[in-house]
Amino acid sequence: MIRIEIVTIGGEILSGRTSDTNFAFLARGLAAHGLACRWHTSVPDDRDALIESLEAALARADVVITTGGLGATPDDITRKSLATVLKRQLVLREDVLHAIEERFARMGRTVPANMQAQALIPLGAELIPNPVGVAPGLKIVAGDNHILFALPGVPYEMEAIAARSVLPMIASLDPETRLAERTLRTAGVSEMRLAEIVAPMVPREVGVAYLPHLGTVDLRFSLAGRPAEAQDALDRIVAPIRERIADAIYAEGTTDLQGALGNELVSRGWTMATAESLTGGRVGGRIVSVSGSSRYYLGGIVAYGNRAKVTLLGVPEAWIREHGAVSEPVARAMAHGARERLGAHVAISTTGVAGPTGGTEEKPVGLVWFGVETPTGSAAIRRQLPGDREQVIERTVLIACDLARRAICGFRIEERQA
Amino acid sequence: MIRIEIVTIGGEILSGRTSDTNFAFLARGLAAHGLACRWHTSVPDDRDALIESLEAALARADVVITTGGLGATPDDITRKSLATVLKRQLVLREDVLHAIEERFARMGRTVPANMQAQALIPLGAELIPNPVGVAPGLKIVAGDNHILFALPGVPYEMEAIAARSVLPMIASLDPETRLAERTLRTAGVSEMRLAEIVAPMVPREVGVAYLPHLGTVDLRFSLAGRPAEAQDALDRIVAPIRERIADAIYAEGTTDLQGALGNELVSRGWTMATAESLTGGRVGGRIVSVSGSSRYYLGGIVAYGNRAKVTLLGVPEAWIREHGAVSEPVARAMAHGARERLGAHVAISTTGVAGPTGGTEEKPVGLVWFGVETPTGSAAIRRQLPGDREQVIERTVLIACDLARRAICGFRIEERQA
Repeated sequence: MIRIEIVTIGGEILSGRTSDTNFAFLARGLAAHGLACRWHTSVPDDRDALIESLEAALARADVVITTGGLGATPDDITRKSLATVLKRQLVLREDVLHAIEERFARMGRTVPANMQAQALIPLGAELIPNPVGVAPGLKIVAGDNHILFALPGVPYEMEAIAARSVLPMIASLDPETRLAERTLRTAGVSEMRLAEIVAPMVPREVGVAYLPHLGTVDLRFSLAGRPAEAQDALDRIVAPIRERIADAIYAEGTTDLQGALGNELVSRGWTMATAESLTGGRVGGRIVSVSGSSRYYLGGIVAYGNRAKVTLLGVPEAWIREHGAVSEPVARAMAHGARERLGAHVAISTTGVAGPTGGTEEKPVGLVWFGVETPTGSAAIRRQLPGDREQVIERTVLIACDLARRAICGFRIEERQA
Repeated sequence: MIRIEIVTIGGEILSGRTSDTNFAFLARGLAAHGLACRWHTSVPDDRDALIESLEAALARADVVITTGGLGATPDDITRKSLATVLKRQLVLREDVLHAIEERFARMGRTVPANMQAQALIPLGAELIPNPVGVAPGLKIVAGDNHILFALPGVPYEMEAIAARSVLPMIASLDPETRLAERTLRTAGVSEMRLAEIVAPMVPREVGVAYLPHLGTVDLRFSLAGRPAEAQDALDRIVAPIRERIADAIYAEGTTDLQGALGNELVSRGWTMATAESLTGGRVGGRIVSVSGSSRYYLGGIVAYGNRAKVTLLGVPEAWIREHGAVSEPVARAMAHGARERLGAHVAISTTGVAGPTGGTEEKPVGLVWFGVETPTGSAAIRRQLPGDREQVIERTVLIACDLARRAICGFRIEERQA
């Protein structure tokens, strides 16, 4: 496989307050071409830091892609740093200058003095056309067959140059090797339990990543090889794994849990309602993230306080007094009330202690009861969830969606902790 | 300033499909301690790639923080790679093993064989307690005063260890230089308008970042210097800016919009309810992210379909027929219905076209009506929101929270588009 490094340049990324969309675009673009990014480095607008990163990148990677620092402002340092690292002079390229002048002339403006800096290019660099902006991309072959691509940092310019020119160029370097991928998305089974089942079923040459996210785990399998062969081989390896953990798999590829739930409802022509306490509306909020969810989601009742549970969902007040709001009978009554009041085929309910306060010895923080009612029956499950308030709530949302999916599909519901 | 590098380990980040929340948490945490991250590297679950990155990081940075690869699954490679790079043996730490066994014993389970790998630690490493999970963090002093911290990749474990131990340790290394920061959090005013007002009021030496996020904009001011002096100087500069844009500021520092809303409700002893259509419950779901929100949030009704608007919120069917579900009278009636049915002081409502389908010439995708009712009156506003389905829904949640805040505070509500 070609060893690829992406170096993103700019201060805001390193502050942690902005996500690195340029990197994400390039990484996804590489994956779409069956390639993988091996290293990603972010550096601030600082010449020394950039030079050190470029040296490290050119030492280890076959292909280096940089984004950012190609503009005309003082913090645009990529061209100078490249010249230093590659030990090449910067030359004023008349063709670039001319293109800049033409672009400004079309806008009826003269070229600002500092824009000339954009025409200073390391000797021997090949220009890559920028269809949507001033600064072209650069392609530089360095020493013993390392290739460096320098792209501007403005996302839509970077994306245009990368998609049109850079990604196809990289893909053509080694058309014989590709990374085939399959992703199985699971819910309700722990990462460790999945690893116990899956690891022995996977041959050495296949990569397996366990990607946990608050109660769901993606299993991503990858195999490098000749394009068609690798995919076929991978499919043969994944098939028995898929069968072995069938109940846990809610989707393959990029479909999410709420999308999978929606598909099950649509295929049966069923509608759905929600009755939420600790999640405050987030189960419904998750369901409506699916475009077209109005075909099956009717709505719900957020009964955060006990009074709302009684008046809006018809939970008997005595049950709350006897069993507490976080209890099996209340979870069941909430699902029943929502199903009846909304006139839906399926209803799901959540009631629990999100914390960090409000826990007791008998009902600790993280205790959640779920109820579900469908045309064929009802069930309730109890879970003791780890994490802080936000995590307890988010885990509850996922478990609720998965419980609804399992109940609709008629899978066995495990009443004990999974 | 201390030169800090963060190395995040795991295949999913490099695929571009997941944003690097561990990096973001650490970078923000460093900033909160007046420190800055100088390099950020992401590497896949690949031993060679990780070893090369660790070597580069230890060569250039004073402090290296790694996240990920400390678990018990086969793709967890950090401990072995550290041992290679630092040329140290892995030793089985009985104390770690014992802690793991105790943890499993408390859950009534025996330790799986592969968990023992978590007790293999490079010789000389100091353990950093993990208050919420099994794998401890590691602190290793390497050669000439480079310090390496290895943290687990599971976000809430990483965050707990970093916040409690690692960030304070790093901050104590050089207490004489700090970056003073102030953040004003605003809603309802565009980034461009804020820049027009703020930029002329800020002296050259102060950094200003405009950090927009779906309808809210954080203004971050920063100034480097000796700890107390820099903070005093910055406070003097920010004071008049604060006054100039007072209505738009919902909070300072890290308090979020729902927290600010909660504070206004608590200070008045008021309660709140929600009536949601296109947001599907996310306004309530946002409100309950605040610990203690049960003091003021009673609950709400998610009326996604029109029938639920009529039966559960008492919206007159004729109004939906005449004006459509996305209209001022329906938004007002929804807020009124929720306020009455939940018995709350304040109610907020949302109804709109989230898209991508369902738009018409008269009611295009992105059109949203909001209603609010308080003990002192009611209002409705109309907004035409940009972005895809997810962005329209999320912008709606923020605007709803800000509208409730402004109505409670008695600020003037601008009926026209801001």
